[in-house]
Amino acid sequence: MHSRIAALARAAALAAACILAAGPARGADTLRSWNTGPTKSAVVQFLRDVTTPGGPDFVPPEERIAVFSHDGTLCPELPAPAELAFLMDRMRALAPKHPRWKSKEPFRSALARNMKALAAAGTKGVMELEGAATGGLTTDEYAAQVLRWLEKGRNPRLARLYDQSALLPMLELLDLLRAGGFTIFIVVRGDAAFLRPWVEKTYGVPAAQVIGSGLRTKFTAQKGTHVLVRRAEFDLMDDGPGRPGAIYRAIGRRPIAAFGNADADMEMLEWVASGAGKHLVLLVHHTNGGNEFAYDRKGTFGRLDRGLDAARRQGWTIADMTKDWNRFFSKPGK
Amino acid sequence: MHSRIAALARAAALAAACILAAGPARGADTLRSWNTGPTKSAVVQFLRDVTTPGGPDFVPPEERIAVFSHDGTLCPELPAPAELAFLMDRMRALAPKHPRWKSKEPFRSALARNMKALAAAGTKGVMELEGAATGGLTTDEYAAQVLRWLEKGRNPRLARLYDQSALLPMLELLDLLRAGGFTIFIVVRGDAAFLRPWVEKTYGVPAAQVIGSGLRTKFTAQKGTHVLVRRAEFDLMDDGPGRPGAIYRAIGRRPIAAFGNADADMEMLEWVASGAGKHLVLLVHHTNGGNEFAYDRKGTFGRLDRGLDAARRQGWTIADMTKDWNRFFSKPGK
Repeated sequence: MHSRIAALARAAALAAACILAAGPARGADTLRSWNTGPTKSAVVQFLRDVTTPGGPDFVPPEERIAVFSHDGTLCPELPAPAELAFLMDRMRALAPKHPRWKSKEPFRSALARNMKALAAAGTKGVMELEGAATGGLTTDEYAAQVLRWLEKGRNPRLARLYDQSALLPMLELLDLLRAGGFTIFIVVRGDAAFLRPWVEKTYGVPAAQVIGSGLRTKFTAQKGTHVLVRRAEFDLMDDGPGRPGAIYRAIGRRPIAAFGNADADMEMLEWVASGAGKHLVLLVHHTNGGNEFAYDRKGTFGRLDRGLDAARRQGWTIADMTKDWNRFFSKPGK
Repeated sequence: MHSRIAALARAAALAAACILAAGPARGADTLRSWNTGPTKSAVVQFLRDVTTPGGPDFVPPEERIAVFSHDGTLCPELPAPAELAFLMDRMRALAPKHPRWKSKEPFRSALARNMKALAAAGTKGVMELEGAATGGLTTDEYAAQVLRWLEKGRNPRLARLYDQSALLPMLELLDLLRAGGFTIFIVVRGDAAFLRPWVEKTYGVPAAQVIGSGLRTKFTAQKGTHVLVRRAEFDLMDDGPGRPGAIYRAIGRRPIAAFGNADADMEMLEWVASGAGKHLVLLVHHTNGGNEFAYDRKGTFGRLDRGLDAARRQGWTIADMTKDWNRFFSKPGK
């Protein structure tokens, strides 16, 4: 029995090695929604460089870490990121019980769906809304509520369910990196707990591999069992200069690939670009109002101003949606 | 070419499935250092229950999460946990430059190697020492320093390098869980960054899968590159009631298996024991002064008092080192 298992293990290892070795060569095929050109070539070349055993840029698998910003990089973030849409819906439902919300920020802006004010309230604003709208729920109740909301939660401009709004070219990129032995982390400004119930199904990324802010919880006995109750207090993941520290705090390593789309991602990209070995730093540039959105320097959410200049100055890879992509979503919206 | 890859992929998947299916059956063999008896049987039975497809207790792989307390569970924690030994050595070297340490706690106790006082200073004390002794280093410098220290850092009572002090029965348990598709997290009271440089080699656990306290960092430009500099400020992972929240914050899920050895682990174990499905909760009981240590209710570090009563009352599994283990370390000490 044992020798049969050992033989199978060897077969599995061999097959896995073949698949991995074939991975980079298959890069161009996996990235079907990417047009042939320098952007696609840069990605495929990077994969080949870091996964070629014995090559000068080979990186051992445990150091193949990639970080993806979520909103605006893996999915659209206009007219509002999914978490904010969830919070606005929930607050509207709860508003009758909270008359003071009408006169207090950022609750007032959430009830009025004032995107500009909500964008200005930043991550702290999102977490204040999370605290007000979901504090007191157990962590299990919160996850269930997020999943229930996602059954109908729809991006109004794209007429598409939020959990079916992942950008297809980015999903292909995740597949390619995984085939190359990468571990992938998703970085979100708001509450990591909002993404965790659905990232596995949507992106194939384990729930534990989400980095973000969080509500504090209280460990408490309830109905003969023990639960964690969400409190209206939070640990904030700062944008910009705070982001590299938050990523390091979560994973203990500098990633070798980073994907972002906004000025808030700048320092994360700079940090990865400062790594000693081969690295890939890519900015998603929203240039396609027909299929998605076009905004860059003027975005309400995901403003890309400093980042675009830095990318050009420092030679980061820019994925221009119009030039570089030929398909945006895997299924028609519904 | 593609059909060959597809065929190999199918072969790999099949082989992996066979190995996984064989995993639980092999349990008794993998746990070679465990004596036959109810403790070993409980572990093997749990693995079989949660990994048998179609069985009433089957748990899908993404929910197979196990958490292990580090000091005292995966390795000895007497006369002092490795991190504290590292800090005491480093502070002794730096002391001439810091005359005030002689008169200020917890620095004074660290210089005097006063274990009782250091134990009383708790996790906060450890993090204050980390801040004083390693603040100002870049995260890369810190990791290099930890690795350099480990080349000679030796548990004085066991005459054994710290990174060769992992308890063999626990290493076997990690292997068994991994073969059963589990994702493993290590929980440490002190600075997660202390363990990360060496957990992969010692335990086969990726660096990102360590949960603990941490020094805050500052993102800064230095010599034309960007680095993270450790600051003398910290995020504390509270013991006891704070621990389930810290684990949830890091991984977003309630684990289904938890391994601890001290009262500080109690709430973590209670939380896992409160899960709706099948779970395994195990306490390592230090009863063997000949091969390791014997202390339980009187431990300087890792005191087990409430936990032992709770385990007996609630039917948790207790691994009694003397009764349940026949071998403690994989290699002779050196």
